[in-house]
Amino acid sequence: MMDLPTAFGLINALFCCYITSASSIEYGEFKPAQNQAVEDIKYDFVIKKFRVPLDHFSFSMNATFEMRYLVNDTWQRGNDPPIFFYTGNEGDIELFAQNTGFMWEIAPTFGACLIFAEHRYYGKSMPFGNESYSDSSHLGYLTSQQALADYADLISFLKSASNMKHSPVIVFGGSYGGMLSAWMRMKYPHLVKGAIAASAPILQFTGITECGAFARVVTSDFRIAHPECPKTILKSWTAIANVTSTENGRKWFSENWKLCQPLKNSSDIKVLKDFLTDIYGNLAMVNYPYASNFLAPLPAYPISKVCSYLTNSNQNDMALLLDLNKAISVFTNGTGNSKCLSVSENSSPNLDSKGWSYQSCTEMVMPMCTNGVDDMFEKIPWDFKKFSDDCYQNFKSRPQPYLACEEYGCQDLSAASNIVFSNGLLDPWSTGGVLSNVSSSTVAILIPEGAHHLDLRASNPHDPSSVIQTRQIHCNFIKKWIHEHWVPIDDKNTVQHEIISV
Amino acid sequence: MMDLPTAFGLINALFCCYITSASSIEYGEFKPAQNQAVEDIKYDFVIKKFRVPLDHFSFSMNATFEMRYLVNDTWQRGNDPPIFFYTGNEGDIELFAQNTGFMWEIAPTFGACLIFAEHRYYGKSMPFGNESYSDSSHLGYLTSQQALADYADLISFLKSASNMKHSPVIVFGGSYGGMLSAWMRMKYPHLVKGAIAASAPILQFTGITECGAFARVVTSDFRIAHPECPKTILKSWTAIANVTSTENGRKWFSENWKLCQPLKNSSDIKVLKDFLTDIYGNLAMVNYPYASNFLAPLPAYPISKVCSYLTNSNQNDMALLLDLNKAISVFTNGTGNSKCLSVSENSSPNLDSKGWSYQSCTEMVMPMCTNGVDDMFEKIPWDFKKFSDDCYQNFKSRPQPYLACEEYGCQDLSAASNIVFSNGLLDPWSTGGVLSNVSSSTVAILIPEGAHHLDLRASNPHDPSSVIQTRQIHCNFIKKWIHEHWVPIDDKNTVQHEIISV
Repeated sequence: MMDLPTAFGLINALFCCYITSASSIEYGEFKPAQNQAVEDIKYDFVIKKFRVPLDHFSFSMNATFEMRYLVNDTWQRGNDPPIFFYTGNEGDIELFAQNTGFMWEIAPTFGACLIFAEHRYYGKSMPFGNESYSDSSHLGYLTSQQALADYADLISFLKSASNMKHSPVIVFGGSYGGMLSAWMRMKYPHLVKGAIAASAPILQFTGITECGAFARVVTSDFRIAHPECPKTILKSWTAIANVTSTENGRKWFSENWKLCQPLKNSSDIKVLKDFLTDIYGNLAMVNYPYASNFLAPLPAYPISKVCSYLTNSNQNDMALLLDLNKAISVFTNGTGNSKCLSVSENSSPNLDSKGWSYQSCTEMVMPMCTNGVDDMFEKIPWDFKKFSDDCYQNFKSRPQPYLACEEYGCQDLSAASNIVFSNGLLDPWSTGGVLSNVSSSTVAILIPEGAHHLDLRASNPHDPSSVIQTRQIHCNFIKKWIHEHWVPIDDKNTVQHEIISV
Repeated sequence: MMDLPTAFGLINALFCCYITSASSIEYGEFKPAQNQAVEDIKYDFVIKKFRVPLDHFSFSMNATFEMRYLVNDTWQRGNDPPIFFYTGNEGDIELFAQNTGFMWEIAPTFGACLIFAEHRYYGKSMPFGNESYSDSSHLGYLTSQQALADYADLISFLKSASNMKHSPVIVFGGSYGGMLSAWMRMKYPHLVKGAIAASAPILQFTGITECGAFARVVTSDFRIAHPECPKTILKSWTAIANVTSTENGRKWFSENWKLCQPLKNSSDIKVLKDFLTDIYGNLAMVNYPYASNFLAPLPAYPISKVCSYLTNSNQNDMALLLDLNKAISVFTNGTGNSKCLSVSENSSPNLDSKGWSYQSCTEMVMPMCTNGVDDMFEKIPWDFKKFSDDCYQNFKSRPQPYLACEEYGCQDLSAASNIVFSNGLLDPWSTGGVLSNVSSSTVAILIPEGAHHLDLRASNPHDPSSVIQTRQIHCNFIKKWIHEHWVPIDDKNTVQHEIISV
């Protein structure tokens, strides 16, 4: 469930996604299995704990807590092996480990040790146990900077092992995890040699990315599936309003949609609409070319399946809503086992949506809006005041819309180095991604056929070629960074003569 | 007075220094006044206040406070003028503004606006007013990271002015202020284009710089003045011990040294020795080629004057101590007005030594030791346990010796850019400085004839040529950074073909 009324799934939308099968690759010659049976990756790991300060940036308190991290050293070779470090995002780290097959596939080639670090306040890394979410004084240490400092501590600890003193560390992350991996390289370049930042919307902030861009990409994904599809969805908002404007209509809707809790009032209608809005955004993110099972059990290209029911925008309201119910069932009842539809539930229950709600109410303020003209949604402008008031009501916190860009930089990333920003163009989060090269060492990759960080997932026979090539590029950069770790670029003697004249 | 027993003036030693006269320069052709009358710089500024969060890195509290900053816009020209921003260090910002003549001298050439920002917990930027130093829960927000975030906030605020939206910002700092300016560029490169970091010992940390190096440079400075001088000082420790071992001896010493408070016990002797140790370190830092008046009214090359009294190490104890008293008076009674010598006083009362004590007991842990063989001091090993216990007794805080290097990097600065590290080789803090080029854009300048950030001081007819050349290099780099701000280096299309093959 959305904790805050937003035009889009700000809260639930930043996910890694699930994959069930994978094949092995050969580094140097990247050979994903194509059209052949693939084996499941064994996502085996040891779960460990590491104690970190609650507050890395003051000495007013001495509180500490244990963060979790996962280790797999199966393929680790020799002394000072590379450490591939996933900078965990807003959920249980086991889920991210199981959904980042790419790291597992390339670990044998690089002889790397795999580490997946859990983000504070998510999964089982709760600074105050069950009290962690009790109020803003407990929640207040849920910040990206504190999480990065946790990772810095953990990396320093890992490198204190006698056989890892000089290990090169490469960070990986998707979505918010990708933002963290990019920022980790920017803020702690002495600890990490490079970052693979997949589908990382580090520019999705006020004044940088236009608030309606996300919705336009979602709409475009549905339009590609069928031209009538977004038209039908756009009409559905009015149809819902019309039909549910009477008690009989609400009864009809509740029965035909098999709602667990019948619609009673306008507040319920609002919850229903938010639920649908979330689902469209989620579908756009996980519009993968093969069946997947994270947000929900979904078929390959789930938007095509959804849109197969939405090919006629000229029906009457009730007929249209019956079609929409079939379409939505692709997402809500892929197994066919669901007895009723609960629109008040989180559309992606595996994620700790309340944590992200809080983050979006403090530093991760990502404006979203829709206009019903360029997109298939009702017109909902970005209303910062309302957003802020809702945040205050929920968390006693006011969002700080310029904080992230001040802390990490948005408009000027020229000093960054050794970061690959990969962006699937089917993914609505690509609108807040880095879409063009910043420099020769901070590069952008566009994946025309990619959804939300598809490139970080395990390889699959149905992967489009652009994703396969992207994984190859990742490998090449990782190889380059590790090489430079051992044989640093030396330009220190090329200081221009006119500059240094003493 | 030293708040903590250390072999060296950890606490008092990181200073900017005072100058009373200056000349103007012409940028492009740097023309310091030589052998001619020079005018005083008018250090005019408007004092302003700016409200910042007490804690930039959590949302658990909403407390704020007003930091001070100084502005001079006399020479500011046109729209988007350069902002020359001094990252204040451990003292009243007015003092640093008045001791960084270099910025004032080059401002007219660059048409720059001058800003001097006061470091939290120093000067009048007290987060809790008079309670700021009351205990560790109040003091705990005195950290370098919080100070950098204050500066980031202030820079963002300054750039919100309509005529400064695109202003390039160059940061300057000396000593701890230089560390902050270098770290500001490393952590906030999107906010500052480059940093002049003068005499910034960012490597003076555990495991990076040998603890005895500082004392060896101090000793060397005294040896250069006169070969007998360090020998005499080395002997003085035994002489003090011998003479003050009896009540009569303590009486003799107290009378002949005109101590304000006579020596009574071994604790007093310890305080006396610490006081002397501090003074030798201070003298090494401010061994400027002209009379200055910051730590004390001092003649040009004060160590030469001090050592002129210490040319015979073979005297008996009392004769040696009488000579030492004359020598010390160069520092303690340069005006001739002092009626008695108070060895329990802070040897540099203008600085907030307690704040630096706290910082050195938390993150700025700079090990110091002496051995009496390679240096002119009593053997005092670096005893971390004792240091830590003393910190705990004073502040209820334990020093974290690896924190600064984890946060900012020490051994690997390869990702840094646009920083000039200048180091006076007469300055004992140069031992913890960056002494060789890191890359073509992060460079080291060695100033053989320079003491502690002499290059940031106003020009003077007696400046050695290496300092004059260093100031020219600073100007050239500043010019380059400002140029690149307006015409960015564009290498984003030079991504290697074998890397990007999509």
